[in-house]
Amino acid sequence: MKLQSFQDYPFTEGGVCAAQGFKANGVYCGLKHQELSTATQQAAAANEADDAAPKKNDLAMIFADKDCAAAAVYTSNKVKGAPIVVTKAHLQNGKARAVIVNSVNANTCNADGEEKANAMCRLAADALGIAPEDVIVASTGVIGQILPIEPIAAAIPALVDGLSYEGNEEAVHAIMTTDTREKQVAVRFQIGKHTCTLGGMLKGSGMIHPNMATTLTFLTTDCAISPAMLQQALSDVVRVTLNRVSVDGDQSTNDMVCVMANGLAGNHEIKDEGKDYAVFRGALYAVMLNLARMCAADGEGATKLIECVVSDAPDEKTAETIAKSVIESSLFKAAMFGADANWGRIACAMGYSDCEYDVNKVHVDLASAKGKITVAKNGCGVPFSEDDAKTILLEDEIQVLISLGSGEASAIAWGCDLTYDYVKINGDYRS
Amino acid sequence: MKLQSFQDYPFTEGGVCAAQGFKANGVYCGLKHQELSTATQQAAAANEADDAAPKKNDLAMIFADKDCAAAAVYTSNKVKGAPIVVTKAHLQNGKARAVIVNSVNANTCNADGEEKANAMCRLAADALGIAPEDVIVASTGVIGQILPIEPIAAAIPALVDGLSYEGNEEAVHAIMTTDTREKQVAVRFQIGKHTCTLGGMLKGSGMIHPNMATTLTFLTTDCAISPAMLQQALSDVVRVTLNRVSVDGDQSTNDMVCVMANGLAGNHEIKDEGKDYAVFRGALYAVMLNLARMCAADGEGATKLIECVVSDAPDEKTAETIAKSVIESSLFKAAMFGADANWGRIACAMGYSDCEYDVNKVHVDLASAKGKITVAKNGCGVPFSEDDAKTILLEDEIQVLISLGSGEASAIAWGCDLTYDYVKINGDYRS
Repeated sequence: MKLQSFQDYPFTEGGVCAAQGFKANGVYCGLKHQELSTATQQAAAANEADDAAPKKNDLAMIFADKDCAAAAVYTSNKVKGAPIVVTKAHLQNGKARAVIVNSVNANTCNADGEEKANAMCRLAADALGIAPEDVIVASTGVIGQILPIEPIAAAIPALVDGLSYEGNEEAVHAIMTTDTREKQVAVRFQIGKHTCTLGGMLKGSGMIHPNMATTLTFLTTDCAISPAMLQQALSDVVRVTLNRVSVDGDQSTNDMVCVMANGLAGNHEIKDEGKDYAVFRGALYAVMLNLARMCAADGEGATKLIECVVSDAPDEKTAETIAKSVIESSLFKAAMFGADANWGRIACAMGYSDCEYDVNKVHVDLASAKGKITVAKNGCGVPFSEDDAKTILLEDEIQVLISLGSGEASAIAWGCDLTYDYVKINGDYRS
Repeated sequence: MKLQSFQDYPFTEGGVCAAQGFKANGVYCGLKHQELSTATQQAAAANEADDAAPKKNDLAMIFADKDCAAAAVYTSNKVKGAPIVVTKAHLQNGKARAVIVNSVNANTCNADGEEKANAMCRLAADALGIAPEDVIVASTGVIGQILPIEPIAAAIPALVDGLSYEGNEEAVHAIMTTDTREKQVAVRFQIGKHTCTLGGMLKGSGMIHPNMATTLTFLTTDCAISPAMLQQALSDVVRVTLNRVSVDGDQSTNDMVCVMANGLAGNHEIKDEGKDYAVFRGALYAVMLNLARMCAADGEGATKLIECVVSDAPDEKTAETIAKSVIESSLFKAAMFGADANWGRIACAMGYSDCEYDVNKVHVDLASAKGKITVAKNGCGVPFSEDDAKTILLEDEIQVLISLGSGEASAIAWGCDLTYDYVKINGDYRS
């Protein structure tokens, strides 16, 4: 999909390796779903036989040339993956040097979960010659299955040997689960005379819902910034990007966004909220805005990205609540799949959101690259051409433009349509 | 589906006509979806040609032989259907005599909505020889399309002429939209020496979500009870039945439950919270419990009823919140469609619910008519036979039994699986 520009931040290639001084790699270590029924095992075995060629990577590493300031935002789910607990402890000093992350198995709701997460850090640290406390660990996949450490231990030498400044492609594939497309973005920006780069990669397709860090996201930058300001920028930008994405309303146990800043760009370290901080925050927004859009567009089974823009709201919270409520509505999402301008479902989803607004001042437009139509004015339906509406809604990026007519605040939320394939992906096979 | 007994309330036939002194009827008046695209109109025309036989009823009436105490609970959606506004005004005196209700068109978000709802009441009242203020009006169907009053006006004479004490079958079909099965239940009970009857019918398949009255439900009883106690019983029972059903998380603009009590059973009028009130409340619970289960089981596209029972909770609110969170999870619902014991999605949905509990004390069993298996103990997965799990989950009524291990409160919530047909119903055609 086309990247969306934000201010004057030019895009660049390289994802988590775009910034100076970050290597990455990804390998296939052979993690498998366990304890499946006989029929499912047979189906899985048949799949593997079909596809005896290279397996999808399931283990990734990012390694910084020097110590980094680091910050993270975690899931607010009370059931937390063991890697979340271990990473939180490791990042208490605001520093990190490496990331190790596996897909297939979430290492969550297991009695030995923290032991295994610590083992992953130790194995990575020993191979890299750093302290285990400088390792960020993450896992994504099925909940409640014991994580076998042996395949990971066996793969670490190859993983470390293969680390390179162009390793972002291998890494981004390793973190994918039901994702159909890789998701990575990087931008350039100036801090004083120094050109900085910030890039990142994200995985996430199902179990995605606002109000937490949503999905696994790894960001790297060569900008020099203090751990405190890095955390502030991350928390602030997560709020208006990933926390406004919903695929299915299910908030994962393992969500995490982390950012590492190695300072190699040579700028004066950003330590407060001045102009430099604003430039850095803008770069973070430009990257995370696009990762958020990619995440929504690649929602499980999705055929289209839905962007809901609520404007003329009394305050940002009201705008955000209404935008999220619309993109989370199963009925609305199914209508978008059918390219049906059933705007009553938008009015309905607005109405059950937990906020106050004047229903008689609401205007609703539907738009895409093919044009724009007004479907409601002053809270009531207006006649429109159903054929024009169909043409607009058959596009793969749809905008729902809602004006509340009672203020100047606005907010955007991102979602996707609800399709047969969402049901197939989540009903047919344990993912 | 099999009715679920509650205490000693025997079931009886007749739905809204089961109690003495209530007639009902339903007719096809010819309400149609408007403003559809050319392609959709052609498809609809083809459908009608295919099916030139009798059309599905779309207009129903209930008429009581004498004045009734009446009570209702309405949607909490801020966008309210015009019939809700009109009915609320009419029930302020706690009395009613008749119900008129149409399907196909919700009469919501229309500038002339209240005018049309009032016209429906006036047409019904004139034909019945009662005051318009004694009529309850309801509409269900597409939002944002003008309701044509002419087909309703033309059909009223036949609707009134056909009223009968066995008219519940015609009426229950008239209120169905995407429902695939009629939903009616009635029970007998004793107040002193007097045998009373309470019965009802419900429509609802999509746009169904807790925290409101969910769907259209009409209840009638010949028990004598004051309007205040009738309202208290209804509000109390809605809380633990319909408000604990979710099909898709979408809360309708037109939801309403209303009950009319004509007193013909001859008992002493129930005016306070004594033993008689408890018996009446039990009857209401027995009827609404079954209507709630029918509603969930016939959720749009559903292949199975999911009942989530949370017990050993510190308080009822916690139990309710967790039970609802589980049955609302799209990922869990899709897993149930696939008969996949992916209990991690249960743990995940519990964890993001907004309440406090000790994740390390959670036990989870899955059960059906084919048996029961334990999938988690003390917050962690335990080994189980995937083949046994599959056998259990292939049934059409599944129980998720969750113990929080930290109290004595409990709650039940009802939902259904998420299937291809949910997407088909809501993506393919405007409903």
